[in-house]
Order: sequence, then structure tokens, then C-alpha cells
Amino acid sequence: MAEDNRRVSVHKIQKDFYMIKAEDTSIKYFEGLWEIPEGVTYNSYVLIGDEGSAVFDTVSRGFTKEFIEVLKSLIDVKDVKFVVVHHMEPDHSGALPELIKELNQAAEVLGHPLTGRLIESLYGLKPRFRPVKDGEVVKLGQHKLTFIHTPWLHWPETMLTYVEDLKYLVTCDVFGAYSIPKHVEIDVNQLPTEYEYFMRKYFANVIGYYRENILKNLNKLKQLNLRVEAIAPSHGSILKGENVLEKALTLYESWAKAEALDSKVTVVYTSMYGYVERVVEYIVKALSENGVNANVFKFTSYERSNVSDLLGEVLTSKLVIVASATYDADLFPLTTYILELIVKKTNAEKPLILLTVYGWGDIASNKAKELISKSKYKIVRNYGINGLVKDKDYVELNKLIKEIIELVRG
Amino acid sequence: MAEDNRRVSVHKIQKDFYMIKAEDTSIKYFEGLWEIPEGVTYNSYVLIGDEGSAVFDTVSRGFTKEFIEVLKSLIDVKDVKFVVVHHMEPDHSGALPELIKELNQAAEVLGHPLTGRLIESLYGLKPRFRPVKDGEVVKLGQHKLTFIHTPWLHWPETMLTYVEDLKYLVTCDVFGAYSIPKHVEIDVNQLPTEYEYFMRKYFANVIGYYRENILKNLNKLKQLNLRVEAIAPSHGSILKGENVLEKALTLYESWAKAEALDSKVTVVYTSMYGYVERVVEYIVKALSENGVNANVFKFTSYERSNVSDLLGEVLTSKLVIVASATYDADLFPLTTYILELIVKKTNAEKPLILLTVYGWGDIASNKAKELISKSKYKIVRNYGINGLVKDKDYVELNKLIKEIIELVRG
Repeated sequence: MAEDNRRVSVHKIQKDFYMIKAEDTSIKYFEGLWEIPEGVTYNSYVLIGDEGSAVFDTVSRGFTKEFIEVLKSLIDVKDVKFVVVHHMEPDHSGALPELIKELNQAAEVLGHPLTGRLIESLYGLKPRFRPVKDGEVVKLGQHKLTFIHTPWLHWPETMLTYVEDLKYLVTCDVFGAYSIPKHVEIDVNQLPTEYEYFMRKYFANVIGYYRENILKNLNKLKQLNLRVEAIAPSHGSILKGENVLEKALTLYESWAKAEALDSKVTVVYTSMYGYVERVVEYIVKALSENGVNANVFKFTSYERSNVSDLLGEVLTSKLVIVASATYDADLFPLTTYILELIVKKTNAEKPLILLTVYGWGDIASNKAKELISKSKYKIVRNYGINGLVKDKDYVELNKLIKEIIELVRG
Repeated sequence: MAEDNRRVSVHKIQKDFYMIKAEDTSIKYFEGLWEIPEGVTYNSYVLIGDEGSAVFDTVSRGFTKEFIEVLKSLIDVKDVKFVVVHHMEPDHSGALPELIKELNQAAEVLGHPLTGRLIESLYGLKPRFRPVKDGEVVKLGQHKLTFIHTPWLHWPETMLTYVEDLKYLVTCDVFGAYSIPKHVEIDVNQLPTEYEYFMRKYFANVIGYYRENILKNLNKLKQLNLRVEAIAPSHGSILKGENVLEKALTLYESWAKAEALDSKVTVVYTSMYGYVERVVEYIVKALSENGVNANVFKFTSYERSNVSDLLGEVLTSKLVIVASATYDADLFPLTTYILELIVKKTNAEKPLILLTVYGWGDIASNKAKELISKSKYKIVRNYGINGLVKDKDYVELNKLIKEIIELVRG
């Protein structure tokens, strides 16, 4: 990572409350998996009280030096009373060891009871750790912090903090987004399409697997009836606007249920020599002529789409079309990789159409069906083509195209 | 693909025998899977006889126009008597449809009996096809062509041609290599290290899965006692030199058996936040200090090695070390992808060391062991680390390092 890519800045959000934002433009694969050319931010928050400050989470390890410098420009670190750890994943806890070194002896690290063990296993440190209970209230001078456990959203130790007097909910990964947004705050009622896209992409990639736990935790949050004026996540912008929590919960609920948007079709295909590609192009063109515009993700000899973006798009699709080559008497290896991620990260009762091209026998279909059968996805049509599309195949593809149009319009 | 990347050239190899070489510098993933920054060539061959010519294979579809032009600059296509199809994979048969259009009515397409069916399924064409038997001899004027079936090396219809009078063996994929070599011919007894690397990489990627069939076909070729002065493959350079066939067979036999080179260690790791990376770096540094230099392939947030190169290196390794992160209560998805390719493409009784890093439980090890247990690989050591490397882990890692040194020196 180049030095000049380590931009860390401080932003006053309101009286006593600051965001320290690290902008990561060097990272290529978030979590080592997800392509993010849009980059990502790691947001830490600082709350200043009459009798000391609280720091909520930190940033990724590569930004440690700059983070500590910026923090010191804002407060005297010896005045930190609490370091609140919402989540131990290293993109947020990376600067924790250096921060702990700088703390006053009396300062406490607050977190879910499991967090202490993780600080020791991930960093070999035993700071003055105080486990906080679900619903526990801790005072920081004039400020009142309520901790809300959100187990398995998306680690066992994840929790949120409600700052009652400010009406701020500090949420770490929850309600976060990829990208390096221009604005520190964003109105949830006027969410730019692009920002919602990055929020959904992040959701599908990082926490999509935990959808049952997400729904449980969303219900829990609803029932708490918190008065929330802003949501401060650790990736992306602060969410504000009327009914911000309700709006954010509604978005997350629809994503956790993988609810379909009107007539949205996503196609993903792997093609070795263009055979699968020509089948897909034929279908996509016909759909387009009938007013159905499919999102197409391709994995060919010349190009690979981002699996990260694919998952975000699949999540809200009404129909998913998977078209694959056959390889070494098996499903094409990249299809297996992608399909396993689709069923794991976006598992839902969605219709799926499976198309294959084969030379000798349609083994790819059988392998794909086996893989999909372990998920909630429903294969509504499966068609295998032996090499080039022939007249009889066109008859079947034309039927299929009609079915797709009925399905997405129905 | 840019127009100026479609370089197709003709090379006189000896009296009556020419190579038409297409250089593909645009392709990123050979077979849609294998990263080849070194590029690849598609070689077609032309044999000119007293009473007409033979064309052996063609090139990839994207080079069709240029291929036909170059062919026409060499011969009158109406004089082509035979088109010999050794293998129907589209990187060699891509220009076949256009070539067939240009042929004289009397010209015949010769191939394995299964090839006719494939020409129809892949191109929807029924040319004047003549199936040739294993060992069948066909005369082209003064030249004598003997066809040798090599089933499942690496498709069911693959075959070779022995041009007896020239002592040339035309082999299509067999003995081919990636890269765009400067020289049309290369001495097998002075094979440049880099060329052998690309030949082995190609072997592991494209035909490695068919090792049992490779060995059968190598034995068959040995027993034919052909007098061969040159091997003309469809990727890379023509192989020449004393005992060229014996040398090439020996190389292929050792690769088909995945024979280990002295003390060669290959390490592949996936790392989300640097934990696995630090374990690997510790081991690799200690090995290096003891004179064991490991090949390291990494899949991190900032970098991904080529899976294609990895497979070529694993093939001749004495020991393979796989180190992986844990993800969503499972093996890290990229580790699964890579490990499945390793056991499929280089399946051999090699020792393998499995290292994992986990936060909650070492599920990754169990998943990896299950996957490896279906192969011939032998897990000689398996060690899981909970987060950061602690003192007790260093004790184990130091033992492991000693074991590795003994193993690779033994």
C-alpha cells in the first residue's frame, strides 16, 4: 500500500461526536474475496464527554499510524475512558493494539463478553476489559451509552451502541456500504442509487450468509423502539433523515429475505470458446426486445466480471439464469465457485434457470442441480445444448424466452 | 481483441512442410480458466505433396480471416486434398468452418471416427468426412501419413499424425506449451528453463486431469518405435534434437506421474487479514535460512497469484503446503476452489501440510481434510492456529519447520 493512499481524516458530526475515516483505495479484494474498485472506508467514532472520551472501534491495521496521529490531533488519548469494540473483525480492530498502548491505565475496553477472548487470540493482548451485557447502560459524563448485543450479525460477539442523548446508533458493519462517499452524511430518504447499490453489495458479500440472524436482530431492534436520528456505521456514510432507523431496517429486512425487485433478471455465465456466450446473447437480446433488461455477468477467456457485484445483483433479482460450460467431465470450475457463493450468500426461494453446453454428455447439469438442490433456489427450467445451437435448440430457447417474460412480468 | 493483436505468420519448416502460427496476446484466461500473461500460439501445419496438400488443424476462431489469407498466400486452397483434424477443441478447429467453405468438392476431412459427429455438433457442418482407423496409412502424393489414435489425451477423439518420409510427428495439444516463443524450432536437449516451465504449466492446466490416459498413450507411442526427427505441436515451438521423441516422452511420463524434483516445496495460502500470511512468512523465512527455497503463491486482499502457474509448480513439488483462512464457518472459498483444482489436476501421492487459522473453531481443517481425502495426496501434518501465533504455536511451527527440512532433504 502506497503511503499517499493512507488518507485518514477527522469529521465533526455534531457537538461532542466525531468520525475518524480511513479511506482504502489500495485494497483489491475485501475480506480477500470481494472485488471493490470503488474502495472502502473504515470509520472509527469519538464521543467526547465531561469526564473523558469514548472511542468506538478503530480502523484496518495498515492505517494504524495515521489513525493514532489523527486521534491525537482531536483529543488527548490519556483522556480516553472507554474503547468500545462492536466487532473484532480486523478491518475495525486493526489499530486496537496501538490504541491500547497509548491509553491511560484506568481506561477500559468495553465489548460483548466474547470480545475479551478475541482480543487475546487475535492480538495476544489482555487489556483492562469490561464485558457489557445486552441492554447494559454505561455513562460517559453527560452521555448515556446503551449496548445492544446483535449475535451473529455477523460474528458471535457483534453489538451496537445507542447514544441516547444524541439519538445516535453506532452500528459498525450493520448498515455500512462499500465505496468512498463524498459526503460524510447521507439522507436515507434520498439514498443515491449508487450508494444503495454499494450498501446492498456489501450486505450480500459480507453478511448475506447470516440472514436468519439478521432477521432476528432486526426484530429485536424494532421492538426496542429507539428514537434514532442517525446511524453511524464503520463503512461508508452516516445515515440520517426522517425515520432513519425504520427505513434502514426495511431495506435490511428486504435484503435478508432476498426480496425481488420488479422484473429484475440476472444472468451469470462461464464460456470457454463462446458457445455458452452465444446462447446467452441470443436470450438477452430477445428479452431486451421485449422490454426485459437483464444484468449480465460473464466469465470468459477475455473477461471476468466481479463476483462481488454479481452477488449484490442476484440478491434482489426475480429470476437468476446460470449458464455454464462443461469441463473435464464436470461443471466448469468457476461455475462451481460462483454457484456455491450464490447459494450461500443469497439463499432464497428464487426461480433459477440452468443452461449448459456440453460436448459428450450433460454432466454439468447434474452437478449444478446437485449443488442447487441443497439450497432454497428452485430450478424452473434446465436445458442442455450439445455444442452449437441447432434448430431444435432454437425452438426450446424461444419457448424459454417466452416463459422468462411471463415469469418476470407475472 | 484488437485487430493488430491478430498476428498470423507462415514459417517454412523444411521442404514441403510449413507452420502457420497465430499469436494470441489478448487472451487472459486459456480455456476460460488459466491466466497466461505469456500468451499462446495456435499452430496449424501444411504439407505440400505432388498431388495436393494437407492442412493439419487450424487456429482459434478469432484468427480465422488472417489464417485463411495466410494459407492462400502459401497454397491454392482448391489444391487441398486433406484437412486432418487431430483434436476438435475450438482453439484448433475454430477456423475449420471457413476452411471447409473454401475447399474443393473432392477434399476430405480426416479424423478419428468420433470427429465427424463433433464437427456437426460444434459447427453444424457435414463436410466430406473420412474417419481414419488407428494405425491407418493415407498417402498424399510422395508423403505417407500414419494416424495414431490417442484417446482421452485429452478428448475422446484426439489423434496424432506421423509423416513417415519427413519423420515428423504432428501432435496438436500433446507436447505443446504456452507462450509466444521467439524460435519456431527448439532443441529438446537444450530446452530453455522458461520453455520447459510453460510446457509443464500447459500440461498441468490442460491435460493433467487425464494422467492415466496419458501414461497409456505414452506407452503406446513407445511401442510403435517410430523414427521421429521432430515433433510439431499446435501450441509453442517445434521440438527437435537427438532422441526427440524419447526425451519428450520422458518429460511427459514424469509429469503424468507428478514426479518430484529435488527438495521442491510449493506453498499456497489464502489470507483475509494477514494472519495466515504471517504464519507462512515465518515458515518460508526459516526454510530459506536452511537452504530450502519455497515457491509461494498468495491470495490476499491486495494480490492474487496465478492458479495456472501454481498447478505447474505443484506438479513437480516434493511437498505442498496449503495454508488457509476460515470463512463463514467453512474453508475460505478461494481455498476450496484452488484445492479442488490441485487434487484434480495434479493428483499424486505427494505429502501435503495443511495449516489453518481460525477465530472460533477449526472447521476449515475438517473441510480441507475431507476434500483432500478423496485424492492421493497424503496429509503429513495438520495444524490449526487460533488467531495470532502464540508461544505454543511457535513451538509447533518450529517442529514443523524441522520436519519439512528433513522431508525435502530425505
